[in-house]
Amino acid sequence: MRLIIDTDTAGDDCFSLLLAMKTPGVTLEAVTICNGNVDFDQQAENALATIEAAGLSGQVPVYLGARKPLLAEWEPAQMHGADGMSGANLPRARQRPEDQHAVDALIERIMAAPGEIEMIAQAPLTNLALAVTKEPRIAKALKHLWIMGGTDNSVGNVTPCAEFNFYVDPEAAEIVFRAGFDITVSTWTLTMRASTFDADQLARLDALETPLSEFYRKVSDTPRKVALERYGRVICTHPDTLTCACAIDPSIIRAARPAVVRIETAGKITRGFSAMHPAKLGARWPEYHDNARIIEDADNTAFFAMLERAFSA
Amino acid sequence: MRLIIDTDTAGDDCFSLLLAMKTPGVTLEAVTICNGNVDFDQQAENALATIEAAGLSGQVPVYLGARKPLLAEWEPAQMHGADGMSGANLPRARQRPEDQHAVDALIERIMAAPGEIEMIAQAPLTNLALAVTKEPRIAKALKHLWIMGGTDNSVGNVTPCAEFNFYVDPEAAEIVFRAGFDITVSTWTLTMRASTFDADQLARLDALETPLSEFYRKVSDTPRKVALERYGRVICTHPDTLTCACAIDPSIIRAARPAVVRIETAGKITRGFSAMHPAKLGARWPEYHDNARIIEDADNTAFFAMLERAFSA
Amino acid sequence: MRLIIDTDTAGDDCFSLLLAMKTPGVTLEAVTICNGNVDFDQQAENALATIEAAGLSGQVPVYLGARKPLLAEWEPAQMHGADGMSGANLPRARQRPEDQHAVDALIERIMAAPGEIEMIAQAPLTNLALAVTKEPRIAKALKHLWIMGGTDNSVGNVTPCAEFNFYVDPEAAEIVFRAGFDITVSTWTLTMRASTFDADQLARLDALETPLSEFYRKVSDTPRKVALERYGRVICTHPDTLTCACAIDPSIIRAARPAVVRIETAGKITRGFSAMHPAKLGARWPEYHDNARIIEDADNTAFFAMLERAFSA
Amino acid sequence: MRLIIDTDTAGDDCFSLLLAMKTPGVTLEAVTICNGNVDFDQQAENALATIEAAGLSGQVPVYLGARKPLLAEWEPAQMHGADGMSGANLPRARQRPEDQHAVDALIERIMAAPGEIEMIAQAPLTNLALAVTKEPRIAKALKHLWIMGGTDNSVGNVTPCAEFNFYVDPEAAEIVFRAGFDITVSTWTLTMRASTFDADQLARLDALETPLSEFYRKVSDTPRKVALERYGRVICTHPDTLTCACAIDPSIIRAARPAVVRIETAGKITRGFSAMHPAKLGARWPEYHDNARIIEDADNTAFFAMLERAFSA
Ligand SMILES: [Ca+2]
Ligand SMILES: [Ca+2]
Ligand SMILES: [Ca+2]
Ligand SMILES: [Ca+2]
Repeated sequence: MRLIIDTDTAGDDCFSLLLAMKTPGVTLEAVTICNGNVDFDQQAENALATIEAAGLSGQVPVYLGARKPLLAEWEPAQMHGADGMSGANLPRARQRPEDQHAVDALIERIMAAPGEIEMIAQAPLTNLALAVTKEPRIAKALKHLWIMGGTDNSVGNVTPCAEFNFYVDPEAAEIVFRAGFDITVSTWTLTMRASTFDADQLARLDALETPLSEFYRKVSDTPRKVALERYGRVICTHPDTLTCACAIDPSIIRAARPAVVRIETAGKITRGFSAMHPAKLGARWPEYHDNARIIEDADNTAFFAMLERAFSA
Repeated sequence: MRLIIDTDTAGDDCFSLLLAMKTPGVTLEAVTICNGNVDFDQQAENALATIEAAGLSGQVPVYLGARKPLLAEWEPAQMHGADGMSGANLPRARQRPEDQHAVDALIERIMAAPGEIEMIAQAPLTNLALAVTKEPRIAKALKHLWIMGGTDNSVGNVTPCAEFNFYVDPEAAEIVFRAGFDITVSTWTLTMRASTFDADQLARLDALETPLSEFYRKVSDTPRKVALERYGRVICTHPDTLTCACAIDPSIIRAARPAVVRIETAGKITRGFSAMHPAKLGARWPEYHDNARIIEDADNTAFFAMLERAFSA
Repeated sequence: MRLIIDTDTAGDDCFSLLLAMKTPGVTLEAVTICNGNVDFDQQAENALATIEAAGLSGQVPVYLGARKPLLAEWEPAQMHGADGMSGANLPRARQRPEDQHAVDALIERIMAAPGEIEMIAQAPLTNLALAVTKEPRIAKALKHLWIMGGTDNSVGNVTPCAEFNFYVDPEAAEIVFRAGFDITVSTWTLTMRASTFDADQLARLDALETPLSEFYRKVSDTPRKVALERYGRVICTHPDTLTCACAIDPSIIRAARPAVVRIETAGKITRGFSAMHPAKLGARWPEYHDNARIIEDADNTAFFAMLERAFSA
Repeated sequence: MRLIIDTDTAGDDCFSLLLAMKTPGVTLEAVTICNGNVDFDQQAENALATIEAAGLSGQVPVYLGARKPLLAEWEPAQMHGADGMSGANLPRARQRPEDQHAVDALIERIMAAPGEIEMIAQAPLTNLALAVTKEPRIAKALKHLWIMGGTDNSVGNVTPCAEFNFYVDPEAAEIVFRAGFDITVSTWTLTMRASTFDADQLARLDALETPLSEFYRKVSDTPRKVALERYGRVICTHPDTLTCACAIDPSIIRAARPAVVRIETAGKITRGFSAMHPAKLGARWPEYHDNARIIEDADNTAFFAMLERAFSA
């Protein structure tokens, strides 16, 4: 499969990139950087370092996109340490970002191969919103869009009602969901249900003792420690990597349903909230039409096996 | 137990009144009418007819409250037929509504017996919002407030994101949840999970062949027919009656949790949405404090038994 | 004329009460207290002290109303000193507030004399919103409602877009403007244009050396000092008193126009904003109808003369 | 002066282009087309036809931009006839639009000549919002940005509270005003005050009997007729052309003031409303800073003379 990943590279974002780069049959053709988790330039460095860690330096171009959300003020996520890499202190990558803007790289690459490229959007959706506003035809030319974001039960992670990626740029998210893409959504609800590795699983990954398992161990250090402190046990969640796994091998999706997805951009307590309603509910509002498929459950064991395989390489 | 029910009497509202009136140990001391399901005066007639059906004519005073929501435009609910009684064509009750306004009746009765009276609010919350704004001390003087309304998974019934009672008067709902009452919420989510009687259960009720089971059969006729048409089987849901059952016998509550409840009054797609978040999420927003208990599951069999017993009398 | 004044008594509110009490032909039949400028109970004391200063102790009943806005959090206004009286340290009045709630006093008095009583609302509109929601018929039974609040040019005084009285309780204001009252609005825009007394005028009032001019001098001390510091000259503005003057003698109104008044209750920057549009603009929105008359200009000299006369008594 | 005009070319937009093209010392270097008044492709044709009418075919490149607003649904303006040209039925221009996207043309041209180019934005601000989000440095590289849009007294023209250009894409407007441009705003309030030509002025323009005065007569036919019908006299207003005149010769600006401009993107009645507050009001909100200069009055006679001169050529 031909793949582009849009990412605010920090922590789990890196593992998603690794999974894509190390799974046979997947070609990661480009990485685009969007505002999100940590300092914008740091995110680009994190992506480049991850490409280098995968042994693909110079083979996966990295494009810089929107340094801040359309309207919202950018605030860093917590959870990732200052560098977004658990202070892993990786050496600066030799590969440098491309000159072309991420928005133009997206448009050019998608329009050059209509129906062939799939995309994973694992960051706030500013880059994609700009691209599809500038060139609306990418919505139909992209083969499939896998979005990590939102919740389908209203229980958020950055505010009580909103998930981080959609909260950071709700206007961008609403633009993307209206644009006519063929979309599958991997929600924070799904993250909580199916993306967590427990202490045993983490121990198995650590025991691989490959360079990539070592990379994983270092970069996931902060979330592991936070979990230990907060819940009394070492665990690690993988919103972006699970999204990538579903895109690469949809057979790990255990349940999915069509839905009407809308993002709240106003609201006193609901800014960034995502409505992901069954079609029959949306039907009550005539202007509502199914515009996405929501993953409701995924196979955690199969997901783990995919990552274990990738890190064994 | 000493009980007051605030109701927009139509269909299931009536069965809740009957359950309260026919359960030994429960004294229904007053009924207050709020805008909601159908025409306001019709709702009062429905309450009076229900009291008459229970053989308590003249013994449960009915007070008229707010004829419309604070700010929202009133729209009738669907689902209940023009009279809200499936066209049951009940004779006009001899008992007439009281002169005192519902808001004053609520204040007077609650303040006269601090810590003794419980209340079921099974309609939009306009009356209670007015009462607690006029006399804030009722919040602490009321023993417990059982509210039917909202959802805790964002899947509404009147708009995709909002449940009817909260949608009709979101400002009132927000006022009530901020006022300091001791609240248990019976949501639409719970309604869908635990309040439905299937064809067998309905047949058992019909087979009672008592005046009250006959009343039930007539008044639930429209929702049964709608269900048959829509889902291919006869079922009937009981949001208000299940709320009443939980109030009368809390042992049928299978799961409940404390929560921070807020009602969205703005929002492009979320007006009337209820956030009912686990305390630890709310804690991220310092101004959020637990202000209610959410019923997550209830014993449908025990609930059915309560109603069967009440209708057997 | 028969008059009721709803007030958050502090500073200028008092002078409005005095003007009403000391103008021949005006009967101030009741004063109702609403949340607003300063501490609620202090406001009641200020009203009672003002009645005593006017020599009418025991003759003008004072009723306590809503201690806080419907939904908004109450915040005190600045500008008035802690007691709202420039620290005038007036003796505690002998007269005490009535037991009846302001909302019931308003309803009872207005319904008892349909078409006879006019009302000045010179505070946030919580009391009136509650009253008209509880008894909608007061909207037509009240002869005329004079409201001090809002702006008709979008230039506010508490936020850039909103005037204090409407900002404190925008939901209440919207309820009142929708209720069907016959309304004249005295805006903050008008306050800025026509209600200011300059140093000469203030000197003339001070020179009266009557008990009431002395009361005025003391109670207006803080705003005078603030003006001196801020603008380099002693001035004093009279939003409420000018409203009262227009109600008592409409001939001082120099220009007025019908308008469609709506209050913004949502909005990121416009909460409490008042739209007061020419009818022809409102007509573009079919649901818009003229619901108020806006005073555009008033005769400052005649207004001053009215107050001078009242204080000379 | 070096000038770029972003336009939703219809009616008055054309006269603004003509004024820029026919005023000595002004070089119109590019025209960019934004969604707005009428069908997008028709707008491009109108711009090309206007360039041809000015005798500059092939000398002023026209770039196509965003075909719809960021989030809002596009609706055509009224007032301009189906073609936006009063049915003038102009011959199709020989010049065709450029291939480069308007957003890239803006970025490339502005960044290539920092501090040299001024821009008139006389349409919804989608193109500029996209450009400055993609390349934030254009905000400082553009010499000056003249924006036609908004009101500074809350009296709108498309809804009671909002002016057309800002209402069509309020999110874009808010992005542009936050981006750090050096901005002068020519409001709809100013349009009403200073841009109208009366019957005498129109007769003088018609009497020129030049090709451009003939172009003007034809293209302004519909608004003239509408005015006659609505107000009983022939008049014509020129929001965009007055903005262009102020940019070309700022000496016709009679009064201007610095202001804090914010655009409401939420709001029940205020979507698209523009707050344009005196700095001292904004100062109450610490996050508010002057970000624009508002033209309060302009010299209608001098403006007319500029256009008369341009059409005489
Ligand atoms: Ca990410
Ligand atoms: Ca009900
Ligand atoms: Ca006042
Ligand atoms: Ca234009």
